[in-house]
Amino acid sequence: MKKVPASVYQEMRDKAAKLFQRLQGEICQALEQVDSVAKFELDEWERPSEEGGHGGGGKTRVLRGGRVFEQGGVNFSEVHGVLPEAMTKKLTGREGTAPFFATGVSLVIHPQSPMIPTTHANFRYLEVDDLAWFGGGSDLTPYYLFEEDAVHFHQTQKQACDKHDASYYPKFKKQCDEYFYLPHRSETRGVGGTFYDYLGKGESERLEEYYSFVETIGSSFTDSYIPIVEKRRDDSYSEAEKRFQLLRRGRYVEFNLIYDRGTLFGLQTNGRTESILMSLPPEVHWSYNYAPEPGTREAALIDVLKNPRDWVPVS
Amino acid sequence: MKKVPASVYQEMRDKAAKLFQRLQGEICQALEQVDSVAKFELDEWERPSEEGGHGGGGKTRVLRGGRVFEQGGVNFSEVHGVLPEAMTKKLTGREGTAPFFATGVSLVIHPQSPMIPTTHANFRYLEVDDLAWFGGGSDLTPYYLFEEDAVHFHQTQKQACDKHDASYYPKFKKQCDEYFYLPHRSETRGVGGTFYDYLGKGESERLEEYYSFVETIGSSFTDSYIPIVEKRRDDSYSEAEKRFQLLRRGRYVEFNLIYDRGTLFGLQTNGRTESILMSLPPEVHWSYNYAPEPGTREAALIDVLKNPRDWVPVS
Repeated sequence: MKKVPASVYQEMRDKAAKLFQRLQGEICQALEQVDSVAKFELDEWERPSEEGGHGGGGKTRVLRGGRVFEQGGVNFSEVHGVLPEAMTKKLTGREGTAPFFATGVSLVIHPQSPMIPTTHANFRYLEVDDLAWFGGGSDLTPYYLFEEDAVHFHQTQKQACDKHDASYYPKFKKQCDEYFYLPHRSETRGVGGTFYDYLGKGESERLEEYYSFVETIGSSFTDSYIPIVEKRRDDSYSEAEKRFQLLRRGRYVEFNLIYDRGTLFGLQTNGRTESILMSLPPEVHWSYNYAPEPGTREAALIDVLKNPRDWVPVS
Repeated sequence: MKKVPASVYQEMRDKAAKLFQRLQGEICQALEQVDSVAKFELDEWERPSEEGGHGGGGKTRVLRGGRVFEQGGVNFSEVHGVLPEAMTKKLTGREGTAPFFATGVSLVIHPQSPMIPTTHANFRYLEVDDLAWFGGGSDLTPYYLFEEDAVHFHQTQKQACDKHDASYYPKFKKQCDEYFYLPHRSETRGVGGTFYDYLGKGESERLEEYYSFVETIGSSFTDSYIPIVEKRRDDSYSEAEKRFQLLRRGRYVEFNLIYDRGTLFGLQTNGRTESILMSLPPEVHWSYNYAPEPGTREAALIDVLKNPRDWVPVS
């Protein structure tokens, strides 16, 4: 992989990239273990150099056709280049283009069983011009809702937040509900989790502190998700339940392609399409005007998506 | 359906809405006939009134699970309201919000067989502030390419254009290739057709002429598409060929949710979600890093999508 141009944050770049690679390895290992059959394949790729000093690359790891997981993608990347004007304006408020550096790990896991939730997580470090910040989050998208699973996920996220600042969890939980929202459906994408961005932007003296937070919460991801998979992986399900999962995956696609900031950032900065769209489920259904019967478990899920809950008490 | 506020273009509004309703009827009838089994269902809907004078409604007609068509949606709508600032700026270059009126018919047809192309068409009349214009187009998205089908589709479109202005077809064909383009895939969505917009904008003395053009080309849509369906509807196909269709439908979803102006306009103006997203195929697959073997029919299709062709000679 090409060396990126040096910056005043060189040490943080290296530390962050190292952390995200370590997280990729740990998360893939935990997922392989709980799947027990399928293994992650590795695709190493380089970002094509263009005029303007684009470069870098990544390691995309994909697991397919497992016993538990229909598809799982865990992507590490470390790229740099020049941001288009609109994106520069949006991220910095400044005119013109700007050099950027980005490293992160992002993952989306689509289980076979509709009883196991889909999950997504992303941990990232960005530089644009002389600004640097961390961002990320972890969230859960169930098809059939087991309240105790949502509680477990949130509880684990809260514990990780609380190690750093008691104000984090309530704030990041709220931001997660706000971010993963489909206005055209009046629904959240799932039952949420945490979402944070711009940590350290304009206050570079706090970057170390935020690095430490992202290290804690990134390392807690498998604790948030794997126990849920273990609990649900042997549950039986009907064809109708599988069909409901495929329809709900349609909403997942809608969110990712219409609203997701990471997808947009990736596509607009000429990122590697296959690694960006690895978030899309292998099989998806849409059905005109579908709505579940009132009083069913399917309707109960949608009710929760329309009325986000507090899953753990915030003291 | 609520009456819309009057405008200087009242007569054109009425004529356009009447034309689009007639086209909806004719197109549905032709599709039912060629399917021979499935019938269109009718959903009449009203646009919820909000502050700011939103209103109107539509008739969404959907055919599902046919012998020939997996899903076909033909939507008529006549709506009005207030455009958000960003959309007003984009469409008129003016600051602030603006009243709008829109009527049109749009359709997307997803056949069962991968040997029959998907098609999309849209014919519309818009007013924003004191500006009024027509737009629309028809395009073809094959999975397995029969060159004669692409030629037939373009030939029929060209004939309709030529009745009005010999300069239309080459211009609208080019605009179609440019519009239905996925930069992140470096591919067009299909083999194109025609695409035109803003006809009469700022030159309202020509609105009648453009109405007449849209009437001609709208009426020619069934001649462009139905003969292709008739020719291919009894062709056999393999599971692998069906699978290729499902993967290519993924590209269709990507285009519609990331780039399509009509989808964006609909969602941003609080349009009826189910009618807007009726364009999405009932079943879709994505497969990480899929690419067809060189020398296959699948590779031949992608080659054409990367290198748009002139299907009929332009004299």
